[in-house]
Amino acid sequence: MTSGDAELAARYEEMKAKRLKLDLTRGKPSSAQLSLSLGLLTNVDERVLERRTDELRNYGYPAGIPEARKLFGEYLGAPAEQTFVLGNSSLEIMYNLVGDLLFQRLPGESMSWHQRRTSTERPAMLCPVPGYDRHHAICHHFGDYIDMIPVPLCEDGPDMRVVESLIAKRNVVGMWATPRYSNPTGITYLEEVCQWLARMQAPSCFRIIWDDAYRVHTLSEKIDEIPNMLELCREAGNPNRVFVIGSTSKITYASAGLAFIAGSEADMAWFGKNQSVRTIGPDKLNQLRHLRMFPSMDSIRRHMMRHRDILKPKFDAVDQILTRRLDGKRIAVWKKPRGGYFISFYTKPGCAKRTVEIARDLGVEFTEAGAAYVGGIDPDDSHIRIAPSFPPLLEVKQATEVLALAAEIAVRELSQVKVVP
Amino acid sequence: MTSGDAELAARYEEMKAKRLKLDLTRGKPSSAQLSLSLGLLTNVDERVLERRTDELRNYGYPAGIPEARKLFGEYLGAPAEQTFVLGNSSLEIMYNLVGDLLFQRLPGESMSWHQRRTSTERPAMLCPVPGYDRHHAICHHFGDYIDMIPVPLCEDGPDMRVVESLIAKRNVVGMWATPRYSNPTGITYLEEVCQWLARMQAPSCFRIIWDDAYRVHTLSEKIDEIPNMLELCREAGNPNRVFVIGSTSKITYASAGLAFIAGSEADMAWFGKNQSVRTIGPDKLNQLRHLRMFPSMDSIRRHMMRHRDILKPKFDAVDQILTRRLDGKRIAVWKKPRGGYFISFYTKPGCAKRTVEIARDLGVEFTEAGAAYVGGIDPDDSHIRIAPSFPPLLEVKQATEVLALAAEIAVRELSQVKVVP
Repeated sequence: MTSGDAELAARYEEMKAKRLKLDLTRGKPSSAQLSLSLGLLTNVDERVLERRTDELRNYGYPAGIPEARKLFGEYLGAPAEQTFVLGNSSLEIMYNLVGDLLFQRLPGESMSWHQRRTSTERPAMLCPVPGYDRHHAICHHFGDYIDMIPVPLCEDGPDMRVVESLIAKRNVVGMWATPRYSNPTGITYLEEVCQWLARMQAPSCFRIIWDDAYRVHTLSEKIDEIPNMLELCREAGNPNRVFVIGSTSKITYASAGLAFIAGSEADMAWFGKNQSVRTIGPDKLNQLRHLRMFPSMDSIRRHMMRHRDILKPKFDAVDQILTRRLDGKRIAVWKKPRGGYFISFYTKPGCAKRTVEIARDLGVEFTEAGAAYVGGIDPDDSHIRIAPSFPPLLEVKQATEVLALAAEIAVRELSQVKVVP
Repeated sequence: MTSGDAELAARYEEMKAKRLKLDLTRGKPSSAQLSLSLGLLTNVDERVLERRTDELRNYGYPAGIPEARKLFGEYLGAPAEQTFVLGNSSLEIMYNLVGDLLFQRLPGESMSWHQRRTSTERPAMLCPVPGYDRHHAICHHFGDYIDMIPVPLCEDGPDMRVVESLIAKRNVVGMWATPRYSNPTGITYLEEVCQWLARMQAPSCFRIIWDDAYRVHTLSEKIDEIPNMLELCREAGNPNRVFVIGSTSKITYASAGLAFIAGSEADMAWFGKNQSVRTIGPDKLNQLRHLRMFPSMDSIRRHMMRHRDILKPKFDAVDQILTRRLDGKRIAVWKKPRGGYFISFYTKPGCAKRTVEIARDLGVEFTEAGAAYVGGIDPDDSHIRIAPSFPPLLEVKQATEVLALAAEIAVRELSQVKVVP
C-alpha cells in the first residue's frame, strides 16, 4: 500500500462515517422545479370552462384539443393536423407505437414488422448506445418478436457507417433516437447526421422513433438546434420515415404533464386509427391547464430558463468536484452537457460496475453501470450515468465526492491493490 | 295504401318538417351530470399538496396512490395491493391487457395466447352479444392473432351451455363480460351464472375480462348486486380466472376520470411488470382530486343517486313514448333497464337497419344497427341501441317519437308497402 492508497482508505472511512443515503439514479425534477408550475393546479375552473363553446369534460377530441395540437405541433415542428396531444407519458406513446408497428400494417405496406420475420432473422431496431434504457425495455418486452442491434453513439450522433451497413445486411425495420441532449451522454445530433438519416436507403417500413425528450431542456443561454426531421425526411423523398415525440414531463410535472407525437399525414392517419381502438381520448382538462400556462412556444422557452437556473448549479458542481478530484489522474473522463438531465462519466475500462458498487457501500445510489446499453451490458464496463437534477445542491456535491472517490478506488483495485473492504 | 299507411305517411312528413338534428348514438353524460363534479376542478391546490408527505407531481406510485388503490379496490371488490388505479380510460387498460395476454406469457404458462395458435385455429375470445362494440374492436384490431366467437347474451347472463361447449371444442382463451347493467341490454348476470363461470373447466390461460363499467350506475333506489368475482374464482379453485375493471368516466368526467383494474396476486404482479414497460405511472394529481371528492364508497353511491335523478326521467320518457306509440302493435319490444346507459330496442326481425335509416332521414342518429354484434352483423337485424343520457329531456322525447315512427314504417315496409320515400 502506498501513501496514496492510505489516503484513499482514510477518505473512504471518513465518507463511510457520514452514513450518507443519497439517490442519483433517476432524472427526476426537483421540488424547486415542480414549484415553477404551481399555476397549473387550479388555473382551470368553472368560469374558464364556461368561456369555451366546446365541452372538455366529455368524450371527444381523440387527438387532443385543437389549440394544444397547434402549440405542441409547433414544439415538434409539425402541422397541428399531424400532431396528436395525448396523455401523461411519451413512453406510453412509444410503447403503443412499437406495438402498432409490430402487429399492424403501415399504410401502403403488405406486412407488419412482425410479418417481415424470416426463417433466420427477426425484424430488428437499431439502438444507439449508450441510450435510454426504457427504449430498450420496450423492445425487450416484445423480445419474442423484435431484436435490438446496438450502434455506437458518437459525439455528433449515431455512427452512420454502422447504421447504413446494418440496414444493408440485416432485417432492420426501425431505429431509436434521442437527438437532442441525448440520454445519457447529452450530445446533440449534427445536421449532417440528420440529413444522412433522412436520405439513406432503407426499407419503406423503416421508421425512426425520434424521441425529442429534451427539446427545450437547455443548461445554457440558448437551445441546441437540430433540423426539422419531418421536413428533412419529406424533402429527401422519405416522408414517412420518422415519428417525432415529446412531453412536458420535465417542463411541468413528471407524471401529470402532456405527451405528444407527430408524423407524416399518412402515418398519423394510421396512428389515429390504432389510437381510436385503445382509448376514448386524452384528458383534455389537463391540456387546457397547460394551454393556460403556456400561451406560446416563447412562454415555454422562458419557463425553461427558470428550470435551467435551478439545474445549472448542480451540473456545474458535479463538474467542479470531478475536476478538482480527478483532473489529470487518468482515472475517468466525463461530459459537460449543454442540456438534458444527465452527465455521462467514463471510468477506466473495467471499473464502472465496481465504482457503482463502492459508491453504494458509501450510501450513494447511481444507476446500475451498463443500464444504458442493450441488455444492460457495457462492453467496456466504463459508463456511469449521473442524474444530478433531483437532490438538493449539497447532496449533489456529496454524491459527486463519493463518485470521484469510488472511481479512484476502483481504478486502484485494477492493479490488485486492496484499498477498501 | 291503407288509412293507417296514410296516417304514417302524414306523421312522417310532419316529423320531417321539424328538421330535427339529434344524436343518440353514444352513452355520454349530459351537461347536468358533468356539473355534479365541479368540485373536482380546483380541489387540489398548493395547500393540499403541502399537507402530504409524498410528492404527487413527480414520478412514483406506478400502481396509483395508496388511498386510491384502497378506495377503488373496495369499488372492485379487491384488496388495495391487487388493485391498480391508472389513467383516464378503462378501454386503454383492456387494450393493454389483451395485448399482454396475446404476446406475453402469463405466470406459470409456457405460451402466450398467440403462441397457442394451431395450424387450423387461432386462439379465440368469447363475446356475449349484443355486447360493447369497443370490446369487439380491440379483438378486431388484433384480428391477425385472435378470433371472436359470439355467445348469446340472455336475461341472466351469457348462455352458459354455449360457453362450456365452445370451451370444450374450440381454442378458447378468454371472454368479455359486462356483468352489471350490461351494454347495451342492461341485464345483470345472475349469481348462478357467475358461479358457473368461476367453476367451469377452462384452460389455465383462460381469462375473463370482467368490465364492471356500470358498477354503481343504477336507475333505481338500489344497485344490482353481483357476486365478488375475484372471490368466487378463488373459492372455485381458479384464482387467476378474472380481471375486474372499472372507471369513473360516468361518475365524474368522461375522459378526465380514473380507470382501475384488479386481479389475482399473481396476475397483477405480471400486469404490473408489463405496465412498468409502457408508462412511468399514472396522473396522481387527478387521483388526489377524486379522493378529495370521494372519501368513501358511500360518497360515490350518494353521488350516483344524483346522476340517477338526472337520468331516470329520460329513460322513463323513452319507455312512456314507446308504450304509447307501439304497445300491442307487434312492431317492437324494448327493455326497461334498472341501470346503465342504454335501452335495447328490438324491431321485428329484418327491420333494424331500415328503422335506423328512416330515423336518420328524419334527422335523428342512432348507433348503427348491428353495432353491438361481432363484425357489426346482427343475424336477426332486430337490435337498436338507444342512448338517452346526453340530450336534454325534450330531445330524448322527440328522438323517441322518431324511433317509434321509423320502426312502424319499417315493419310496414316488410309487407312491400311503400309508405315513405
